Amino acid sequence: MTEEYISLAHGNGGRLTRELIDKVFVQYGQHPLLDTVNDAATMSLPNQTICMTTDSFTVQPLEFPGGNVGSLAVHGTVNDLSVSGATPLYLSTSFIIEEGVSMACLIRVVKAMAEAAHKANVSIVTGDTKVVPKGQGGGIYINTAGIGLKRTHTQFDIKRLSAGDHIVVSGPIGDHGVAVLLARDEFGLDSQLISDCASVYPFVEAIDTIDGVKFLRDPTRGGIAMAMHEMAQATNLSIRLNEAAIPLSGQVESVCNMLGFDPYYLACEGRVVAVVAPEVSEEVVRRWQVCEHGQNAATIGEVLPRQEQYHCPVSLVTHIGGERLLDELEDDPLPRIC
Amino acid sequence: MTEEYISLAHGNGGRLTRELIDKVFVQYGQHPLLDTVNDAATMSLPNQTICMTTDSFTVQPLEFPGGNVGSLAVHGTVNDLSVSGATPLYLSTSFIIEEGVSMACLIRVVKAMAEAAHKANVSIVTGDTKVVPKGQGGGIYINTAGIGLKRTHTQFDIKRLSAGDHIVVSGPIGDHGVAVLLARDEFGLDSQLISDCASVYPFVEAIDTIDGVKFLRDPTRGGIAMAMHEMAQATNLSIRLNEAAIPLSGQVESVCNMLGFDPYYLACEGRVVAVVAPEVSEEVVRRWQVCEHGQNAATIGEVLPRQEQYHCPVSLVTHIGGERLLDELEDDPLPRIC
Repeated sequence: MTEEYISLAHGNGGRLTRELIDKVFVQYGQHPLLDTVNDAATMSLPNQTICMTTDSFTVQPLEFPGGNVGSLAVHGTVNDLSVSGATPLYLSTSFIIEEGVSMACLIRVVKAMAEAAHKANVSIVTGDTKVVPKGQGGGIYINTAGIGLKRTHTQFDIKRLSAGDHIVVSGPIGDHGVAVLLARDEFGLDSQLISDCASVYPFVEAIDTIDGVKFLRDPTRGGIAMAMHEMAQATNLSIRLNEAAIPLSGQVESVCNMLGFDPYYLACEGRVVAVVAPEVSEEVVRRWQVCEHGQNAATIGEVLPRQEQYHCPVSLVTHIGGERLLDELEDDPLPRIC
Repeated sequence: MTEEYISLAHGNGGRLTRELIDKVFVQYGQHPLLDTVNDAATMSLPNQTICMTTDSFTVQPLEFPGGNVGSLAVHGTVNDLSVSGATPLYLSTSFIIEEGVSMACLIRVVKAMAEAAHKANVSIVTGDTKVVPKGQGGGIYINTAGIGLKRTHTQFDIKRLSAGDHIVVSGPIGDHGVAVLLARDEFGLDSQLISDCASVYPFVEAIDTIDGVKFLRDPTRGGIAMAMHEMAQATNLSIRLNEAAIPLSGQVESVCNMLGFDPYYLACEGRVVAVVAPEVSEEVVRRWQVCEHGQNAATIGEVLPRQEQYHCPVSLVTHIGGERLLDELEDDPLPRIC
């Protein structure tokens, strides 16, 4: 690492995050089974293949329209298992609570967790609680780890991507990011917008028997732009999105215009992106549109051979027909939301 | 909960921790599979029984003689699986890193994790990294969750405890707690003491075919006193320890005498306590004494019918023959070490 100290940008899901993982966690923590590409690791037990994933949730504020850190911690891990081709079964949960947090807030968070787990049909089976002194925490940090049973008929694999594939998204992007930003009351903006925080498992289940469905990803930290970068980097392909096709709520669009944010980098917590063979993209869209929260599902882009003329493998055809590069996140252009 | 706000004592492993778990996490997060008594939850997959556990590690300072937060995070979770009767297999790891942490320190922590995992024969299979702003973290917090395969021949169950059982410990107590305290340099004390931080799996494997071995626990936060309280509360029995029999290094003893700490409440991170039928305690001690770090293994107490004359079910026969009650931790009598 060229940096001597950790900066906030090491946590933004962009280039520095990737370097931190590659140059510290992979290099010094190397284990042949460590999976840094997929959202969950896949392991074999005797007669059984399971997936395991983990995520820590450090969202500020702890509560926002449409959820709180508790429901988010359930959905985040359920979603990582779902897009990995597993049926989510069991979660562990670990709380790092800052001295001085109100019991009422903690209870709301725990309740939201339980409700989210119930709705997502997963069991929280074990837990841990630590309390840290005031000034050494962020209210409530929650880690969830999850185990799912690998569905034998799914073959999601980033290596199956090829030029010509279509990119499909299950709904409007950026709702979670904007809902959290506005919940901070820093901008004096009022909005009816609520986070999209939800399980994406129903979306996965709706399409996972379609053979041409090649890879799924939930575009959380770093938004769809960084999800596309991960795919492009892992495959040496390029990806071109079509701005006019990307579903975006009017509220997200106006907040982004007003505050100068780019919605393609904003986190979703209940959306899923699929890379599919071109001949099945209409079928995927059709199945998703009848799912709850899926009415705006759309094909939003395509996979291309690597476009060597550009320094960046992810681009966007804009409303006026130009092509704009969607660079990797570098520094922290957005307020931190996770 | 009668308390309106979280205090540090909610994290000390004593009465308030237990109440927080019972009155918040169990009450509001209730799920029939949530296991708040054992160190790991046991779940069935088709043809397979696995155990899952989780723990977040918030030790200060991050590095101490004998380990750091990375090795601790591996051993803590390996040990919870081990005492639950499982062979530890897979770990997830999630870092919450505070802005400004030095890369060199982070690398030492990741390296120590990898070494500990290698030595304990577990695979770190998935991970996550978050960065939080300066003043909202404690340097590096690490969560590990772990999966182990339930060993079919083990029958560890707190419900098997009965009056007459013996309590056996695998080595001297309090080394980890004192090593961490001294690493803070607050007391101006110098010592050669190193943390006992290590996998206890070899101790478990050495005795788990002995039928009279009923229950195991690693006495971490809250020390052996709180481990005994958990057993006494879950069974409505009493436990009497014998001060003269409890192995204690000279250094731990003198630090405790000097600073007024009670070693029975200090955390161990590489010791295990077994509750065994009286006729097998000698055999357990014999097998443990030939394990690495086991030369001081000893029978240190016994299980009694509930002693109704005392308000507290855990007591200690002192060197001079008196009986002293080892109360549940109430407020924070010890510097926080986890």
